[in-house]
Amino acid sequence: MHIRNSAKSAVTVLGLGPMGRSLAGAFLDAGVRTTVWNRTPGKDHELVARGAVSASSAEEAVRASGTTVICVVDYDAVDSVLRHGAVTEGLRGRTVVNLSADTPVRARRTAGWAAAHGIRYLDGAIMTPTTTIGTPAAVFLHSGPAELYQEHKPVLDALGGTHTHLGEEIGRAAAYDIALLDTFWTAMAGYAHALAVARAEGVGARELAPFAQGIAAILPGIFEQVAEDVEKGSFPGEGNPLTSAVSSMAHVVQTSEAHGIEAGVMRAAEGTARRSVGLGHGADGFSRTVEILERGTASSTPPLRG
Amino acid sequence: MHIRNSAKSAVTVLGLGPMGRSLAGAFLDAGVRTTVWNRTPGKDHELVARGAVSASSAEEAVRASGTTVICVVDYDAVDSVLRHGAVTEGLRGRTVVNLSADTPVRARRTAGWAAAHGIRYLDGAIMTPTTTIGTPAAVFLHSGPAELYQEHKPVLDALGGTHTHLGEEIGRAAAYDIALLDTFWTAMAGYAHALAVARAEGVGARELAPFAQGIAAILPGIFEQVAEDVEKGSFPGEGNPLTSAVSSMAHVVQTSEAHGIEAGVMRAAEGTARRSVGLGHGADGFSRTVEILERGTASSTPPLRG
Ligand SMILES: NC(=O)c1ccc[n+]([C@@H]2O[C@H](COP(=O)([O-])OP(=O)(O)OC[C@H]3O[C@@H](n4cnc5c(N)ncnc54)[C@H](OP(=O)(O)O)[C@@H]3O)[C@@H](O)[C@H]2O)c1
Ligand SMILES: NC(=O)c1ccc[n+]([C@@H]2O[C@H](COP(=O)([O-])OP(=O)(O)OC[C@H]3O[C@@H](n4cnc5c(N)ncnc54)[C@H](OP(=O)(O)O)[C@@H]3O)[C@@H](O)[C@H]2O)c1
Repeated sequence: MHIRNSAKSAVTVLGLGPMGRSLAGAFLDAGVRTTVWNRTPGKDHELVARGAVSASSAEEAVRASGTTVICVVDYDAVDSVLRHGAVTEGLRGRTVVNLSADTPVRARRTAGWAAAHGIRYLDGAIMTPTTTIGTPAAVFLHSGPAELYQEHKPVLDALGGTHTHLGEEIGRAAAYDIALLDTFWTAMAGYAHALAVARAEGVGARELAPFAQGIAAILPGIFEQVAEDVEKGSFPGEGNPLTSAVSSMAHVVQTSEAHGIEAGVMRAAEGTARRSVGLGHGADGFSRTVEILERGTASSTPPLRG
Repeated sequence: MHIRNSAKSAVTVLGLGPMGRSLAGAFLDAGVRTTVWNRTPGKDHELVARGAVSASSAEEAVRASGTTVICVVDYDAVDSVLRHGAVTEGLRGRTVVNLSADTPVRARRTAGWAAAHGIRYLDGAIMTPTTTIGTPAAVFLHSGPAELYQEHKPVLDALGGTHTHLGEEIGRAAAYDIALLDTFWTAMAGYAHALAVARAEGVGARELAPFAQGIAAILPGIFEQVAEDVEKGSFPGEGNPLTSAVSSMAHVVQTSEAHGIEAGVMRAAEGTARRSVGLGHGADGFSRTVEILERGTASSTPPLRG
């Protein structure tokens, strides 16, 4: 019971990049006894000034609390911190909450390692920027044993925001994370490219921004509709057929490349859309591309049509 | 003066695809005398039932009103409708409002043709789906002579929504359009891909959608910040460095391809981000990629660093 109680009152944060520092800061603000460690020393000065305990090794850090939150760049980094005799031994009977981002496969592998060493393991993902941590705007996703999650809910709540337990399958938070990072970084790449093209056309970044914000504002409704189409397996295109989307995409590529700005992202998007048209779905809506992507390249040969 | 007055009270719509039909419908709802024509006949039944006049040729259509709104798939289609002796002749002294989408280059070329034939010309772009036309949610962009725009504002207002005159340079509406379509279709491609990957991981489209909507909700603030960075030429990455973005992008590609789902869009996005890191900007924020895209591939050789 000792460790269970300390889970609520003491936490260790491993990894003091921008996100790790934000997490540790939120724990401190919430009055949680917080021990910190980072591979490269010297990143904890501000946290120590705010009351954090600086551990001189990862082993010392994990032994200081019942719960260790690790937030480093990826699971290779997680492995190189946790998979050492002394650290692994120090974690036995304690809980690791892994808030680093990586793939579902890696999450499952890490859970296997934890189980083999008697370490209780929750996997999670952070969906919002560092500035949201400790505020209602933060979004955290979790997966792993429901009981373990419930037990650690109080300490997680110190991080602010909303926490969603997505299920016991340990890879689930990473699966959502991957899909949402896909959505986010693709959108960011499109916007960055749009700014480059706009500027080449003499339109300032701040001139374009309010209209780009208008585009972002219509996405939620469309996201809902596309999800519905995909689940129903029907892809209505009356309002905006794929042929029309393909034409718009081609205009973007042409304008970009005429300015010497590479358009690889839009070229790839156009390729998938054109493939969908080529497979006979030109009158369908854009949601058809989800089904085309799922078919994979192996089945990209047009089916025989009557 | 005859033509000027009729601009407010009568309009011709050429092109009765989903968007052309919505435009014509909004004019009818606003009590504007509306003449319609489409290359392929038979698309005007519902509009005629609502009071539209069906023209039997494009020439007849353009002669029926002082203002012709054309909304077809692209400017090749515009040319094949308008650039015929009789139609061009019929338009002399009248106004064409071209709401078809294409590139700024094509808009400029079309304006040149119009000027050479004594046709008054406004170029515009529609930024929202057909369902928004006639409602406050519609967004229209316009460019061309300010006086001509002001004169036609009343008839344009019949379409509902907000209308913005971006300037006299005729290519400007198309330039915004291209940049915003770039933003929109790239985001859509990312979301479609995310749904495919999520489903491969056993996450349903409707399960993911609310979280994807959460991602869309954070974009406007980030769009603002990126535009500011780009205009200042400073790309702070403390909160989220490019190295971290590259790592997330690689996870998306890995997870996607492990399921046999092609990841060309994210591969291209990752390529640009990695190139930025390779050029020495790994600690910068994602906004740095705008500047890297603008440099073009010719200058992608790393500069000598001291
Ligand atoms: N920043 C955000 O806005 C944000 C948002 C959501 C999720 N996330 C996720 O949160 C995690 C941390 O992100 P971050 O923003 O703090 O920055 P980051 O650059 O992704 O990670 C930096 C941290 O990783 C550590 N690290 C890297 N390689 C290591 C290794 N081989 N061994 C040990 N430690 C290693 C660094 O230690 P050193 O100081 O020693 O290099 C530092 O503590 C990432 O998975 C990221 O995707 C971040
Ligand atoms: N739908 C939307 O949500 C939306 C939103 C914003 C902007 N837009 C823009 O609005 C424009 C029209 O879009 P849309 O949705 O109505 O559908 P579309 O499929 O882009 O265009 C269909 C229209 O183009 C005509 N057309 C195609 N090729 C032609 C040619 N060679 N000669 C004459 N006419 C030709 C079609 O005539 P036929 O019937 O004879 O084929 C039909 O009237 C496009 O530029 C589009 O990008 C659409």
